[in-house]
Amino acid sequence: MGNYVLNHWYAAAWSSEIGAGPLGRRLLDEPVVLFRQADGSVAALADRCPHRLVPLSMGTCVEGRLQCTYHGLQFDGGGRCVHIPGQATIPPKASTRSFPVVERYGVVWIWMGEAERADPVRLFSISKHGQAGWDVIDGGYQRHPSNYVNIIENLMDPAHTTFLHSGTIGNPLAGEQPVATERTDDYIVAYRWLENTSPSPHDRRRLNVGDVPVDRGQFFYFHLPSTSRVETIVLPAGAPRDTDEQLCAGLRTYSYKFLTPETASSTHFFWMHVRNYQVGDDQAAAMLRAALERTYQEDLEIELAMQRAQEETGLRQLVSLRIDHAPVMAARMLAQMVEDERA
Amino acid sequence: MGNYVLNHWYAAAWSSEIGAGPLGRRLLDEPVVLFRQADGSVAALADRCPHRLVPLSMGTCVEGRLQCTYHGLQFDGGGRCVHIPGQATIPPKASTRSFPVVERYGVVWIWMGEAERADPVRLFSISKHGQAGWDVIDGGYQRHPSNYVNIIENLMDPAHTTFLHSGTIGNPLAGEQPVATERTDDYIVAYRWLENTSPSPHDRRRLNVGDVPVDRGQFFYFHLPSTSRVETIVLPAGAPRDTDEQLCAGLRTYSYKFLTPETASSTHFFWMHVRNYQVGDDQAAAMLRAALERTYQEDLEIELAMQRAQEETGLRQLVSLRIDHAPVMAARMLAQMVEDERA
Amino acid sequence: MGNYVLNHWYAAAWSSEIGAGPLGRRLLDEPVVLFRQADGSVAALADRCPHRLVPLSMGTCVEGRLQCTYHGLQFDGGGRCVHIPGQATIPPKASTRSFPVVERYGVVWIWMGEAERADPVRLFSISKHGQAGWDVIDGGYQRHPSNYVNIIENLMDPAHTTFLHSGTIGNPLAGEQPVATERTDDYIVAYRWLENTSPSPHDRRRLNVGDVPVDRGQFFYFHLPSTSRVETIVLPAGAPRDTDEQLCAGLRTYSYKFLTPETASSTHFFWMHVRNYQVGDDQAAAMLRAALERTYQEDLEIELAMQRAQEETGLRQLVSLRIDHAPVMAARMLAQMVEDERA
Repeated sequence: MGNYVLNHWYAAAWSSEIGAGPLGRRLLDEPVVLFRQADGSVAALADRCPHRLVPLSMGTCVEGRLQCTYHGLQFDGGGRCVHIPGQATIPPKASTRSFPVVERYGVVWIWMGEAERADPVRLFSISKHGQAGWDVIDGGYQRHPSNYVNIIENLMDPAHTTFLHSGTIGNPLAGEQPVATERTDDYIVAYRWLENTSPSPHDRRRLNVGDVPVDRGQFFYFHLPSTSRVETIVLPAGAPRDTDEQLCAGLRTYSYKFLTPETASSTHFFWMHVRNYQVGDDQAAAMLRAALERTYQEDLEIELAMQRAQEETGLRQLVSLRIDHAPVMAARMLAQMVEDERA
Repeated sequence: MGNYVLNHWYAAAWSSEIGAGPLGRRLLDEPVVLFRQADGSVAALADRCPHRLVPLSMGTCVEGRLQCTYHGLQFDGGGRCVHIPGQATIPPKASTRSFPVVERYGVVWIWMGEAERADPVRLFSISKHGQAGWDVIDGGYQRHPSNYVNIIENLMDPAHTTFLHSGTIGNPLAGEQPVATERTDDYIVAYRWLENTSPSPHDRRRLNVGDVPVDRGQFFYFHLPSTSRVETIVLPAGAPRDTDEQLCAGLRTYSYKFLTPETASSTHFFWMHVRNYQVGDDQAAAMLRAALERTYQEDLEIELAMQRAQEETGLRQLVSLRIDHAPVMAARMLAQMVEDERA
Repeated sequence: MGNYVLNHWYAAAWSSEIGAGPLGRRLLDEPVVLFRQADGSVAALADRCPHRLVPLSMGTCVEGRLQCTYHGLQFDGGGRCVHIPGQATIPPKASTRSFPVVERYGVVWIWMGEAERADPVRLFSISKHGQAGWDVIDGGYQRHPSNYVNIIENLMDPAHTTFLHSGTIGNPLAGEQPVATERTDDYIVAYRWLENTSPSPHDRRRLNVGDVPVDRGQFFYFHLPSTSRVETIVLPAGAPRDTDEQLCAGLRTYSYKFLTPETASSTHFFWMHVRNYQVGDDQAAAMLRAALERTYQEDLEIELAMQRAQEETGLRQLVSLRIDHAPVMAARMLAQMVEDERA
């Protein structure tokens, strides 16, 4: 049993992954199969035929039902067996667990806890997605071989950017700049404004305001229990930033990661990037996608190294630093949330 | 300790596998080495030099004796050390266990239980092997990464053919046709006759009787504890089938699988195919061999998936179906046989 | 905890392996990182950043200090953290263990035990290294997947040469020739003189004395707890051999192996070869290097097979032979040394 919050909508797959055939994926340490029903909606079942425990994801979709590859048993989206070749009566036990599913933002979201509490109202809301003047890079996926808490702490930790990502997104200045932290019941945010600094050549071109200094805001949100949202804003130095409209006058980015534990030592890392510049520019999007993949790969390697060291030593860290404030708070809030759910 | 019957002749290797050098193979979870003695007969020893435990199968055959690669100790077919370089006296402990072996039908059979009970009379008899008018495909081998009970159940289960083997030997009709089951102390058979059906294009050409309907018999034998024999017969519809001679007037096939547990989660799968049509036709045999290999590979993948699910859940199945009758009976008879031997 | 003597200088790396960046290597089952300080000397630290346990060997060297790749913490050669980005005060716990290191003979030697006992006087002395008239092949490294005791026993065992190395250095004559054994507190030596024998074609050419018989001496030293030194001498038959000078008139070889346990089932195998013939002949050295690598690879495969058999059976051997005298004595002396240190 892992350190998972069960009653929550987790990203299970990109919509584009669920086509004519089923998709098998381990989520919160349970094997799950996703497939499309006759009406096009996605269903999710425990990925084991109740007959011989063969993964249903090895099977095929037949008229919106999932057919086991071994003996042809067919299951509907509710997990009920509706056809057994060679047998007219279907035993009551011939069923497999089904999980609530919602498809939104091009993501298939699954609820692994108590089905009666699976309210789509509780789905995470993605700012600006689908709005005019904004562009989305989606479909991003990596499998990170580390417990998801390591990934959350990494994502709440701007300080590592200067060093680990020096070849990609790192910024020598950033390392020494402290962050402020705020929290509510639902999220924690670490943030900082770097004021009156030089824009990067990229940002200067995108801003198109000539050679002026800028203010740069970075907001690292962790929405419990599994979503990271990093927001960056670049504005000409001194520009007003009191309203959402004023902030949108600058370069604005929302970088989302939807973390879904696979096992105690691996995590599905879905990422999505939303921006209000270079909208419709496919070449810019492709370059951005490649740069982000590289950056997340750098994180992946560190997370794996930490996972191994944690498994060998049974420890997480030997000394705490000031930069640990937000990551450690995020990890504690998550642990409390897991404990509350169990109680 | 596995769920194995020890006092039994198991297929250890194809005769053609034992040439000038030794062959190492794990059988019933014990390392065994096979080699040819000076008279050409095969000997089988525990595959560990008593000196330093190095596998004797890493060594060489020297004048019909097996020489350890490390220090040159030589062993005869009885497992006695007969030469130690640099030492005239051979200590009594310098021996390794030997196992009774018989070579027949191109197969090396080994007896892993009490040697004094190893009577060649108890060897499995292969129908029609070597008889005029019959042809044999042998040498078939696959390593199946699953406990051998899963493989036995698969082989006693005609119902899966329609689904799992739809691209190879599957027959949509076959899925819904019930089977009868009979048993003796030594074997169980599940069988069915499909009467007055259309022959496959292949069988029509082989029968060479024009466009007539056929009766098709399928017999799935499990000879305890480790041999599967699937017999198929295709006759013009209504032809008499009371005697062996009458049955041989049709297309007749014996498909043998000799299962030898390697470990608790893997099995040596030796297969042999005997037929009374296209005799001497090498091209037909090659095509048949390839089709059978593909079919067994499909089974292998399911068996592996079941093995993994069984290891993770500690369960074998959650619901029983009518088609499980013969497989489950076979598994129970085997379990009883193991229990009887231990008692 | 392994069967290791801690208070001893072990080979950690070749000097040539420690360049501009750090080198991570597991030694005596502890992760260690080696790097060069500003003055060019090598330092060794426990290979875990105390902050998040990330291997420091993933980092970089910055002005002779080791910088963690994750958050840029910098450590000096004593393991003290000397810089934390974004934080002026360095917590006392922000340090990692350092190990004494000495560089000599092109080898980096490390002391994994009590630092205050790490006296360079106790370093192993390599005969003839760097002397005129002698040539050295160094840089040899293999990772042997076996406990180091198996490797020590192999190196103290001339008898296996005839069989295991028949295609490389083996000599059919050698197998039957007994060895004498002597021991002190610090080492054990097994040796034999093969007198009045034919030289190999190679040795005849090297000796350059025409077609005369030779005396051949073989000395297998094990210097506790981790160094093997095999000395061979080839002299015209009957030549005096009472002094080092007389022995040096012949062909003389010192073959060193520095064994450093990596884990309980793997060993770093550093080898060095010192000779007084074909000095300066690069082509001869290259051929010699390749032949030695092949020979040690043959040993590696046997050691791996023994390791697996030992792990499966919990045994080391079932019968003792006369040839085991020196190897078994070496293993016992080592076990006693480990026990003495713990007491």
